Amino acid sequence: MTTSVDRVFAAGTGVRTAGTERAAALDAADALASYGQRFLPSQDTTLRAYLDGNSLGRPPAETAAAMDAFIRRDWGSRLIQGWTDAWMDWPTTVGDDLAAAALGGAPGQTLVADSTSVLIYKLARAALTTVPGRTEIVLDSDNFPTDRYLLEGIAVELGLTLVWVESDPAGGLEVDQLDGVLSERTALLLASHVAYRSGFVADVQAINERVHAVGGRVLWDLSHSVGSVPVELDAWGVDFAVGCGYKYLNGGPGAPAFGYVAAGLQAIARQPIQGWMGHATPFTMGPGYEAHAGIRAFLTGTPPILGMVPLRVGIALVAEAGIGAIRTKSLALTDFALELVDAQLVPLGVEVASPREHARRGGHVTIRRADFADVNRQLWAGGVIGDFRAPDGIRLGLAPLSTSFAEVAVAVDAIEMLLTA
Amino acid sequence: MTTSVDRVFAAGTGVRTAGTERAAALDAADALASYGQRFLPSQDTTLRAYLDGNSLGRPPAETAAAMDAFIRRDWGSRLIQGWTDAWMDWPTTVGDDLAAAALGGAPGQTLVADSTSVLIYKLARAALTTVPGRTEIVLDSDNFPTDRYLLEGIAVELGLTLVWVESDPAGGLEVDQLDGVLSERTALLLASHVAYRSGFVADVQAINERVHAVGGRVLWDLSHSVGSVPVELDAWGVDFAVGCGYKYLNGGPGAPAFGYVAAGLQAIARQPIQGWMGHATPFTMGPGYEAHAGIRAFLTGTPPILGMVPLRVGIALVAEAGIGAIRTKSLALTDFALELVDAQLVPLGVEVASPREHARRGGHVTIRRADFADVNRQLWAGGVIGDFRAPDGIRLGLAPLSTSFAEVAVAVDAIEMLLTA
Repeated sequence: MTTSVDRVFAAGTGVRTAGTERAAALDAADALASYGQRFLPSQDTTLRAYLDGNSLGRPPAETAAAMDAFIRRDWGSRLIQGWTDAWMDWPTTVGDDLAAAALGGAPGQTLVADSTSVLIYKLARAALTTVPGRTEIVLDSDNFPTDRYLLEGIAVELGLTLVWVESDPAGGLEVDQLDGVLSERTALLLASHVAYRSGFVADVQAINERVHAVGGRVLWDLSHSVGSVPVELDAWGVDFAVGCGYKYLNGGPGAPAFGYVAAGLQAIARQPIQGWMGHATPFTMGPGYEAHAGIRAFLTGTPPILGMVPLRVGIALVAEAGIGAIRTKSLALTDFALELVDAQLVPLGVEVASPREHARRGGHVTIRRADFADVNRQLWAGGVIGDFRAPDGIRLGLAPLSTSFAEVAVAVDAIEMLLTA
Repeated sequence: MTTSVDRVFAAGTGVRTAGTERAAALDAADALASYGQRFLPSQDTTLRAYLDGNSLGRPPAETAAAMDAFIRRDWGSRLIQGWTDAWMDWPTTVGDDLAAAALGGAPGQTLVADSTSVLIYKLARAALTTVPGRTEIVLDSDNFPTDRYLLEGIAVELGLTLVWVESDPAGGLEVDQLDGVLSERTALLLASHVAYRSGFVADVQAINERVHAVGGRVLWDLSHSVGSVPVELDAWGVDFAVGCGYKYLNGGPGAPAFGYVAAGLQAIARQPIQGWMGHATPFTMGPGYEAHAGIRAFLTGTPPILGMVPLRVGIALVAEAGIGAIRTKSLALTDFALELVDAQLVPLGVEVASPREHARRGGHVTIRRADFADVNRQLWAGGVIGDFRAPDGIRLGLAPLSTSFAEVAVAVDAIEMLLTA
């Protein structure tokens, strides 16, 4: 591990490995290969492979053009009239577009607003108003940190009890882990559709059925599935969901989030941050809050319109490619990553910490070795960008529209070179 | 009022009125006149005057360039590395830049995040944790609707009592209105520095002193003053403040908001939406929320980085021009508006519903007449864009960096023509 990164990568430059040969064939056969050209190229000439689209998706080329047009034509020319032209409706029209493209949700149930964390707070609090008197919130240990922290805070402020389910870090929340956990005390379960560490895909429908059987609600975090793994919110009987705009939806750093509230719950669920955009008639500016009918009651402040411009482009790209085709490529990418990891890295003591079964495997693959914190620093220095998750995991995030099979081979070859240097 | 808008405006085209003559002289002498060229021109050839920069500021030309560079170079080239390069610090570095340019706040007390409404919720709740056992929230009737609605909700969820102070709609909250209202029960007063209807400038320091004398806290809404009327948060002894990024700061529709928490209160105030970005060590991703030291404890979700790009340009523009020079022009603009309104519109039954005294006058002037809802529709149709506030007010919003004296004359002439047509 003392060999300099530059020398390791220099030695590997231009070498055609078994992996790069296979990758070339897979890229040539990839039905979505042309989408790679739809993204802006990095101007960083040291970038060799970007495998972190599950943390921050790349900008589509159209985003630069759309933003420039928005600034000059919509904001700069229509000015305040933009609100009455169209922007007032964007939180729900962009939400409906997203629901149609990637969420399996009928119109009128999805909005774009806030950050993921703020929306989790609002929808968790809203969910709790639908089950008064219940005292327990169930969480699995593999929830993303912000989800856990937010619900800890809510439990303290409302005097509720958190009930923890320990999940396998290389897996996720299995239905049978809920045996003996759920009861007439269960108010809410919060869980991730795709686990942020392992990429495990939860059985949303089966878990909903278990929680509904005891009269509780479920809030799903879709941050690591939306735009990569198909979601069927209506068909799966989802109550509430939230998700992130800056991963597979390519909305840019800190993009607005989205939330879903099932039609049947909108009239009884009440969120606590009652700002003017959730009011029945915001521009009357009268005394007294009166919640808007339907999904708009879950809005709070002035919608982040500028931040929705890239998100609209990203959603349109997912709609154009089709979530089915995206999932097909996602599985091909993770199949390929696992094939190379098994052949090149497992013999070097690397462990796979992600599900292998297609039905349980999301869009990223996590691999582990005790020295991966150091290895990841060297990968970054060499222009191979994945991400590290303590204590010893490297996530290879494979964004179906922008990641090539060649990038997967480059990354696995780079790790092999670093481990054998 | 049946005369068509087009005919009215056509009749006025090219006519040099007393107002336009005076405006030409004032524009020629304006020390900030060159800033008008720093904004993107509207591509809408029907736009005659834009007097709504207090609702949505215009885009600086540099914003288009900065956004394009950000998308290609920062987001598109550095990708996830952007977070460690700089973005993690943007909520507080951009906050500090804003505090230095326009808020009179020392570093470490200001952040950029969320929407104004969400930040009001967070900081009001935080303020209440510093005065446990107190039961009353004082609000004046001239608070912006979202402020009122949010505090109504908080009062219900925490079992507190709202105490209303009725303000003059053509003025605002006067210090002596607090006589007999404040007591040892007072937890929090929420008020606006500049009133959204009348433009009245509150005496922040005197009001703080009155509330502090009974042991309560004050949360100030700076949305209608920031970037237009000087603010001295530290010198005035402000506890908490929030404000808006899309008015005089030109951050674009739905720009992120800002919040201020006085250094001395940061260790005892606790906000309820405890997401990962407020955690002491967000990337440890460990169990249990532990608040970050200082102002970062008031962050929640992933910061809206893309949305901060225009805000950074807007803040830099305010810093460059200087808030003192901006205030000087602001007063000159409102002086001129009042002069023309008095000469041309008051004889037609129009009333001024804004303070005339400089010390109490903010950046916009509100005028009233019973038929102004209809008049404002005709103004919009004719490309004169102010805004209407029920039941009968037209606000002439004068953004010092982008509004010319000529626009003021065009607007007043247009209203006169419509009222006499």
